[in-house]
Amino acid sequence: MQGTQPPTSPAAYTPTDRTIPTRAAQKASYDRELVHSILDEGYVCHLGFIRGGAPVVLPTLYARVGETLYVHGSTGSRPLRMTGQADPGLPVCLTVTHVDGLVLARSAFHHSVNYRSVVVHGTAYDVADPREKRAALDALVDQVVPGRAADSRPANRKELAATAVIRLDLGEVSAKTRTGGVNDEPEDLALPHWAGVVPLRKGYDAPVPEADLAPGAELPGYLAAL
Amino acid sequence: MQGTQPPTSPAAYTPTDRTIPTRAAQKASYDRELVHSILDEGYVCHLGFIRGGAPVVLPTLYARVGETLYVHGSTGSRPLRMTGQADPGLPVCLTVTHVDGLVLARSAFHHSVNYRSVVVHGTAYDVADPREKRAALDALVDQVVPGRAADSRPANRKELAATAVIRLDLGEVSAKTRTGGVNDEPEDLALPHWAGVVPLRKGYDAPVPEADLAPGAELPGYLAAL
Repeated sequence: MQGTQPPTSPAAYTPTDRTIPTRAAQKASYDRELVHSILDEGYVCHLGFIRGGAPVVLPTLYARVGETLYVHGSTGSRPLRMTGQADPGLPVCLTVTHVDGLVLARSAFHHSVNYRSVVVHGTAYDVADPREKRAALDALVDQVVPGRAADSRPANRKELAATAVIRLDLGEVSAKTRTGGVNDEPEDLALPHWAGVVPLRKGYDAPVPEADLAPGAELPGYLAAL
Repeated sequence: MQGTQPPTSPAAYTPTDRTIPTRAAQKASYDRELVHSILDEGYVCHLGFIRGGAPVVLPTLYARVGETLYVHGSTGSRPLRMTGQADPGLPVCLTVTHVDGLVLARSAFHHSVNYRSVVVHGTAYDVADPREKRAALDALVDQVVPGRAADSRPANRKELAATAVIRLDLGEVSAKTRTGGVNDEPEDLALPHWAGVVPLRKGYDAPVPEADLAPGAELPGYLAAL
């Protein structure tokens, strides 16, 4: 370790004032592979923007395609209406968080959660090009269930027009993670309280088919494999 | 239904310009019980605020006590440093989201997720009163694992001083939910694609105890019951 300055390399995003934390610097990472892996494991982000001088945070679907994130929404939705024709871009902060476990210490103070998060700062732009928009919509479906886009009826012209997609490049990016066990004070180790980590269970329950499926519409392999 | 105007009553939060959605108004609710139930089911929120003219969204722990939310963080953390001495308060947006299921339609356009979310707009203030701060810290631990605060070593004076807590009153609040099955177009129903809902599985795996537990520190009942 050479101080808290994180490494910068082609394998990492370049830290900036906004992505260097003021504390817990040891938890921050700019590693591209780590950032990608955290983003790829999720599909719901929390998108922050400013409206009327105040912050707004909305949950929304996203997809990663290389070094670009796409965020989906109707053209009527608030963040997306703010991009558009002239499109000066919308300053946003996009955050993805996975909670992995509860960290129960002997002391209340050292309670924590194990988690992995990515924070992306940047400017979001409306996707106007129909080809990019169509690819982004496929990516948004496949981000939730890989393989699903090809197994659904693609958007028609009307649907495509009714859908807005914004793009946000992965430039100013950092990841934060907490892993491992409890960090109690040495003098607390003899306390009688149980301490440890409770891992979160993740996964899916059995798919519930619509009642009116077409004859022969069986559960596809990519869903059975979830 | 009398248009899209939501009801206002003692059992509901009063809608404002910021909490009346521009679209999908049928999904918005101001019902106090619903809002509370969504908040009480979670413990990680996404807190949005403005720094240097740009939005920032960070995941953090929260707890609800009546009509107040408490958000935890070290005094070194960025949002909390901005409150403090003079404490003009920090304009924030606090959002809690639960994803309940994947909604897979025959058409790409009608893919969605079932979810429940709460968005709180307001001004957050530093909790200076030691008694309120201590109660808030207990609430933050109990929000994650009910019953845990009483079964841990309480914060000492040094820890209390090193911990910042901000409070945000539940005034300007709305909930949004999507439940149920697929909403495909009638002309798509005969398509051969499987359609339905994949529920998310939620819960915990077996707790992993620390290796150096005190003799007799057994798994408490409130954890076995998770």
